[in-house]
Amino acid sequence: MVERTSLQNSPPTPHTLPRDILVVGSVALDDVETPFGRVEGALGGSATYFATAASFYAPVKLVGVVGDDFPPEHVEFLRRRQVDLAGLEVVEGGRTFRWRGRYEYDLNTAHTLDTQLNVFAEFSPKLPETYRRPGLLFLANIAPELQRAVLEQIERPALVALDTMNFWISSRRDALADVMRLVDVVLINEAEARQFADTYSLLGAARAILALGPKAVIIKKGEYGASMFTDGDHPGETYFFAPAYPLETVKDPTGAGDTFAGGFLGALAREPVLDANAFRRAIVHGSVMASFTVEDFSINRLRALTADEIERRFAEFQAFTRF
Amino acid sequence: MVERTSLQNSPPTPHTLPRDILVVGSVALDDVETPFGRVEGALGGSATYFATAASFYAPVKLVGVVGDDFPPEHVEFLRRRQVDLAGLEVVEGGRTFRWRGRYEYDLNTAHTLDTQLNVFAEFSPKLPETYRRPGLLFLANIAPELQRAVLEQIERPALVALDTMNFWISSRRDALADVMRLVDVVLINEAEARQFADTYSLLGAARAILALGPKAVIIKKGEYGASMFTDGDHPGETYFFAPAYPLETVKDPTGAGDTFAGGFLGALAREPVLDANAFRRAIVHGSVMASFTVEDFSINRLRALTADEIERRFAEFQAFTRF
Repeated sequence: MVERTSLQNSPPTPHTLPRDILVVGSVALDDVETPFGRVEGALGGSATYFATAASFYAPVKLVGVVGDDFPPEHVEFLRRRQVDLAGLEVVEGGRTFRWRGRYEYDLNTAHTLDTQLNVFAEFSPKLPETYRRPGLLFLANIAPELQRAVLEQIERPALVALDTMNFWISSRRDALADVMRLVDVVLINEAEARQFADTYSLLGAARAILALGPKAVIIKKGEYGASMFTDGDHPGETYFFAPAYPLETVKDPTGAGDTFAGGFLGALAREPVLDANAFRRAIVHGSVMASFTVEDFSINRLRALTADEIERRFAEFQAFTRF
Repeated sequence: MVERTSLQNSPPTPHTLPRDILVVGSVALDDVETPFGRVEGALGGSATYFATAASFYAPVKLVGVVGDDFPPEHVEFLRRRQVDLAGLEVVEGGRTFRWRGRYEYDLNTAHTLDTQLNVFAEFSPKLPETYRRPGLLFLANIAPELQRAVLEQIERPALVALDTMNFWISSRRDALADVMRLVDVVLINEAEARQFADTYSLLGAARAILALGPKAVIIKKGEYGASMFTDGDHPGETYFFAPAYPLETVKDPTGAGDTFAGGFLGALAREPVLDANAFRRAIVHGSVMASFTVEDFSINRLRALTADEIERRFAEFQAFTRF
């Protein structure tokens, strides 16, 4: 069984910085329609969004599965982002996970029109030998049993974070709670947090998850930003909030949460000490990266993104809440 | 026609500090039911919540109307808070404005069960001579024509803010836009901002209101906090965000918006210069005061509130967003 270290007292890492980051999750082709346009067969999936965002900060290794219909230009894009694809399984004769969704003007809620799991239905993460000592690990939204199976294949990294979704909360709550007990950070959206803890209060929901063992719970609220709750009695020390970037138009919110996670773990990969201040800066980096992603469909806004743009927006976030 | 001064370059006030604050709005008796309890005939109304909150910061003068059924203990409470009631008209034989509402677990939306305007239906603000040179003015949620009538009875204060509601946006949009042209700050909740500007984008809605002339638009988002938009091209200078206080339980959100306005103008009443930094601190004071109000029904939490508690919570808010 793996041991967690305290948020306040994580030892300095022996690794060189930045740490490398392992992500396990979906790689998909998305058909998305919003009031601002539509795309067909666009690059999507939780591991894709995460890896693309995190690749601006640190080396990323990806574990996922696609069919042989997966377009070579998508592989090429991830390679150009320096993402290690040794763990991307290609199933001959199989079809890639395909998701079709629509958003109304209220872009907070995705309406799923069709889900074809295809090769993702039989996904069983197998980690190449070179993946087994990651600096940081992100368990994207997959079955809790698979998340656990990944943990059992690796040496304990400096930090493990997981995401999940309503489907697993409804169908596999106990298995999900068991994995939460093993991780350092739970990322979850607000409706899912309320569902998991069966309470309207986000503070109550966060406390219920913290009681399982994670040292931080990050509740994602879409256009309303993100809150971090850590253990303790004083709200001033245990609560942190980052607003969303004020955008005139959100073109496509798909992948915002996974991009947030990518910016968050990416920023942590560059921090010598994973303390509360590092977490706060990392949450703002998560918000920065998510704010770029939603400006265009798929990962398109990230294709031409520069480190300068990231730094400028980070500075703007500082100004948004300074008083 | 009154002139507005620029947010960046307001001249230092010649008044002694704190400035006094004039509020015009409703004084009501509320019957409220939430999942956490109920009250009957509790002290309510926009001017009441505002005046109670602002009275922790500065002298307040109130203009409103009640019937002769208005309980003496409510008058006594406002007097103890040093609120000047020379402008509170008591209609002999009349009944006080009565609102009956209910909230579900999602406390963001009030369900109005009954509204009896009573003496408030004929409300026509008449300002006593001693009220005509206020330091600051808050036009609470009343008909836009009445808000304008108040402006015509006074010497221009250092700052004028107004609030409104969906009813006036639907029925008197043009009159409302006309008053917005005359004020410095518009406070509005997010659904109303979207309705007023006919756009889902809060940034778009804020820009539409700024285009009318106000130097700041404050959009209240309930449990999601409050955003301030000011004119300009750089989000880092023109956007400010304050989260809501993370509470385990919100007992009754009634009056949160008016309490926010009370903390906001109250804090500004103590600022020598009304610049962007003063506005930011004032928004946090608004959030602080609103967070107390929702902890109990009616203005009950404010009855025993102390300056120390306000300062402590203000310091917590600083910690919530510092990185």
